[in-house]
Amino acid sequence: MATVAVQSFVSAPLQVPKVTQFKIGICQLKVTTEKSANIFNARSMIQAAAEQGASLILLPEMWNCPYSTDLFAKFAEDFSDIDSAPSLLMLSEVASSLGVTIIGGSIPEKDAGQLYNSCPVFGPNGELKAKHRKIHLFDMGKPLPGEVQFKESDNISAGEKPTVVDTDCGRIGIGICHDIRFPELAMSYSARGAHLVCYPGAFNMSTGATLWELEQRTRAVDNQLYVASCSPSRDSAGSYMIWGHSTVVGPMGEIIATTGHEEAVLIAEIDYAVIQWTRESLPLESQKHNDIYQFVDLLRESPNS
Amino acid sequence: MATVAVQSFVSAPLQVPKVTQFKIGICQLKVTTEKSANIFNARSMIQAAAEQGASLILLPEMWNCPYSTDLFAKFAEDFSDIDSAPSLLMLSEVASSLGVTIIGGSIPEKDAGQLYNSCPVFGPNGELKAKHRKIHLFDMGKPLPGEVQFKESDNISAGEKPTVVDTDCGRIGIGICHDIRFPELAMSYSARGAHLVCYPGAFNMSTGATLWELEQRTRAVDNQLYVASCSPSRDSAGSYMIWGHSTVVGPMGEIIATTGHEEAVLIAEIDYAVIQWTRESLPLESQKHNDIYQFVDLLRESPNS
Repeated sequence: MATVAVQSFVSAPLQVPKVTQFKIGICQLKVTTEKSANIFNARSMIQAAAEQGASLILLPEMWNCPYSTDLFAKFAEDFSDIDSAPSLLMLSEVASSLGVTIIGGSIPEKDAGQLYNSCPVFGPNGELKAKHRKIHLFDMGKPLPGEVQFKESDNISAGEKPTVVDTDCGRIGIGICHDIRFPELAMSYSARGAHLVCYPGAFNMSTGATLWELEQRTRAVDNQLYVASCSPSRDSAGSYMIWGHSTVVGPMGEIIATTGHEEAVLIAEIDYAVIQWTRESLPLESQKHNDIYQFVDLLRESPNS
Repeated sequence: MATVAVQSFVSAPLQVPKVTQFKIGICQLKVTTEKSANIFNARSMIQAAAEQGASLILLPEMWNCPYSTDLFAKFAEDFSDIDSAPSLLMLSEVASSLGVTIIGGSIPEKDAGQLYNSCPVFGPNGELKAKHRKIHLFDMGKPLPGEVQFKESDNISAGEKPTVVDTDCGRIGIGICHDIRFPELAMSYSARGAHLVCYPGAFNMSTGATLWELEQRTRAVDNQLYVASCSPSRDSAGSYMIWGHSTVVGPMGEIIATTGHEEAVLIAEIDYAVIQWTRESLPLESQKHNDIYQFVDLLRESPNS
């Protein structure tokens, strides 16, 4: 037992972004073993989403690379050298040419001899605005009967901080797949004033059926904000079968749009006024008992950050 | 922004209770305007649950009194004077005569001129082992179109602490209705070593349909423990229509037993070994990043309490 001094923050007020009502496009794409084909396909689906009016576009976890540990190093890109990073270069170009914001799912990132499972965020000017490295790696313990052992940290290093990014389409928090299992991450995003939390993820058939929708609805309703997820399609290449079912959830836990397990572009309307109505109708934040418990975000820099 | 010094605790290890495999009986009873009839009916349903093998029995929120603010004072009982408290006296007597543990839902409690929404817990010797006062009162803000204004704190005072109680059937945390909306309470119970969190609750038709099952499954799966809820039946007297659907959820979010909206005794098997398997299979607790965020339980007295 140690005594730690922590700063007690109140939640940051919601800022008004450039756009408060917009369409989000979710690209549930099929990942193949050919990186260049994946890049071409992702670009086509981003374009299709933009043609349907999406100004914010979300890609899946590991969209340029099958989820196979032996391929991560080969498919990895260096986020500090975009000109030599074909996947990032495409995202930058397409964001700029279509004038959209892209939450770029994840790809393997290489940095100083380490690999990360990282989400790039591009603004409509093609700028790399942010990067989220998956914090909570999916490391199974003792498999239950019928389960296959899986330990992501054998190949991937963990991110060390939450990521919120101010975009034209609002303040967005990012979690990758297993990050969704930790209520603390979504709580930190909510307290930092996020309108939306995006979870690229590739849940498997077992956890997908039981937890994928549940966790998304929960993070939305407990924090009274929007949640969007994007999975690869089930027929993607890789070492395990993927659940699919990319989804957008509103701040009252309502499913606004969802899809099956096949390749699809999912379009959903988001209206941040609903967050305000929801919070005015039931002010959960002010009902919390900070005399009994406190959630502490150790890395939050200032009360309004 | 204030700086507070907090003690950093690890989660308490799970203790092995007297019974690790048992049946829980959930009495989804019909509340009427007659207190004596409610007491008689509750006793009959507790007996029916015990006859079906239940050794732990859960009652609904406000089972002796319709949920009508004008009746709370009239139906309230003084927990410090059980001999003058007909509802508590019955629970003590029936717990002792049947040899069961009763998580007594809630009744209005009167204490020093205040009213509370309080859950009594009786052991199989008839002793009042614990009392939980509802912490998070259901105070709506600005009603959405079609919603009816409701402010519980107009009539009820809030509890000031979480309640965990060691029973023959495990360490049990208690939350009443709106308490379930706050992940922090269940997190504090999990960290204090609870096997099961019991939520007596009377969700209404709107929040019932959208949130009742979701929140129970979430609290179970995020904390990898059992959750049990007990509602009055829909045809109960009172100022609003009740959702019903009392439920028992396992540590992987699986619904073990549930019921509709009519009066019913629901029996479910609980096996605390499942908690252990679940945590060994996916050790969420050890995957938390306490370097990034911390949940602080300000009232926890010692690392093993």
